[in-house]
Amino acid sequence: MSFSSGIFFPTAPKMADVWQDCMNFGISIASSARQTILEASKSKKTVMLKSSPVDLVTETDHKIEEMIISSIKEKYPTHSFIGEESVASGETCTLTDNPTWIIDPIDGTTNFVHRFPFVAISIAFAVNKQTEFGIVYSCVEDKLYTARKGKGSFCNGVQLQVSGQEDITQSLVVTEIGTQRKEDVLKTLTSNIFKLLKIPVHGIRAVGTAAVDMCLVATGGADAYYHIGMHCWDIAASAIIVTEAGGVVLDTDGGEFDLMSRKVIAASSRAVGERIAREIEAFPCERDDGKPQGVSGNVNGHPSGEK
Amino acid sequence: MSFSSGIFFPTAPKMADVWQDCMNFGISIASSARQTILEASKSKKTVMLKSSPVDLVTETDHKIEEMIISSIKEKYPTHSFIGEESVASGETCTLTDNPTWIIDPIDGTTNFVHRFPFVAISIAFAVNKQTEFGIVYSCVEDKLYTARKGKGSFCNGVQLQVSGQEDITQSLVVTEIGTQRKEDVLKTLTSNIFKLLKIPVHGIRAVGTAAVDMCLVATGGADAYYHIGMHCWDIAASAIIVTEAGGVVLDTDGGEFDLMSRKVIAASSRAVGERIAREIEAFPCERDDGKPQGVSGNVNGHPSGEK
Repeated sequence: MSFSSGIFFPTAPKMADVWQDCMNFGISIASSARQTILEASKSKKTVMLKSSPVDLVTETDHKIEEMIISSIKEKYPTHSFIGEESVASGETCTLTDNPTWIIDPIDGTTNFVHRFPFVAISIAFAVNKQTEFGIVYSCVEDKLYTARKGKGSFCNGVQLQVSGQEDITQSLVVTEIGTQRKEDVLKTLTSNIFKLLKIPVHGIRAVGTAAVDMCLVATGGADAYYHIGMHCWDIAASAIIVTEAGGVVLDTDGGEFDLMSRKVIAASSRAVGERIAREIEAFPCERDDGKPQGVSGNVNGHPSGEK
Repeated sequence: MSFSSGIFFPTAPKMADVWQDCMNFGISIASSARQTILEASKSKKTVMLKSSPVDLVTETDHKIEEMIISSIKEKYPTHSFIGEESVASGETCTLTDNPTWIIDPIDGTTNFVHRFPFVAISIAFAVNKQTEFGIVYSCVEDKLYTARKGKGSFCNGVQLQVSGQEDITQSLVVTEIGTQRKEDVLKTLTSNIFKLLKIPVHGIRAVGTAAVDMCLVATGGADAYYHIGMHCWDIAASAIIVTEAGGVVLDTDGGEFDLMSRKVIAASSRAVGERIAREIEAFPCERDDGKPQGVSGNVNGHPSGEK
């Protein structure tokens, strides 16, 4: 309670608390969604294709996204949404200042189809285009990664810290191939791997979900991750998980991270991130928000994440 | 008890039972070794180099191998051993008809050093050059994979079955880069990845341990694995885990699997295995047993593993 100009007001709730409630709600939804995914994983899936013969989607992706969005809409009817399957069905992918939930119902759909044991639910929440929190639930491993702006990153309640590695020759790097299969794209992708191995890096890993890959950087288990061609919903949550664990998030050209550009480096240090940026080449891909590539559009409040 | 030619003999124990006792002993040793690895994982490691600046070994690799071999020697003093670190220290790598334990104390040493969460103990046991059983303990995941000749493969007691996938375009493929960093080797490695992606396969994964990669094929989570340059101790145990789960194990040229050749394809079906063999190219590497490459030397009783 407080007084102001002689008028008696109930204290307005602090914004931070409001978003913490949203985060708690997001965690409870992710936990329910995980159960549905684990159940569905046991049965036969109907697999459909999206952008390429290897860009898979199942009825479970749609079902989980609908479940998550309808639950949130009921509790927070004024909030906005960017969801992988909604965008695939024609909804716009624009981040406004309105509180916005950015959702990937199943990150690692190919893994889900094959029962390769890395499948994640990714939920990020942005206000005024700044990410307030991120939730990544790695379902089969039963690892719940979370980060709240300014309050650190956690996995199953244990605080995370990146490795702090600054030497690329001592680094373990994670990446993904993605779903593009055009010859020139594949040439760039494999040439990037070649160039990093030639430095040499300690090794290259790929578990099949961008969200989990980036969380592995947050844990210190990997020193860097890079990816060209993923979408904003794949990495919105894990980007804040990396930065709140003390890591950096950059564009693949070494510049400011742009959530909509479909290019990301997450690293244990700026030195390692920038070294990777100097080595790798991006192939052209359309921005998530439809703007021309290279045009402004930084839409994340944690441009580099360096604390 | 039995009679033969009027002479009274105690019945000789069946060979199968003798090896089952060895297997049980191997599992108990692997379980103890896992505890030591998990403990050591928390502390700072002293890292040394072997064949290249990215071929790492720690004091824990040596300690675990010594612990495993000395325990087995005490119980089975006449048995032979092929161990990764013993061979690195100059012991011969020759498989005879004598009962032989083939040991990798830490498969995924680079992961171990970085705390990337895939590290395995691999123990295989061969008699008359035929693998009798294989044990792979994925330590951080707490997954114990086992297979006994003719009796199937299991993970934590649940029987495994490969996916049975026969279509390469529907396949998820696992591979590893390994520790060689010469330019021509890297060119071949990345060109192989390019060629498989171009088919296209569903995706390529790499978790950083050959033993676990192959066990993922046995679970049906991946449809194939290929690797050039690994050693016999990396895959001796997981090869029988794949074949006892209904999969096939081939040379990278599509021919008979040769434990000492440092080339392997493990697949859900012969069709997928042979399709990969047609696509990929091997780079030269010295055989584990020192024989010239291409010279006889099949030393495994499960050449293709097809049942």
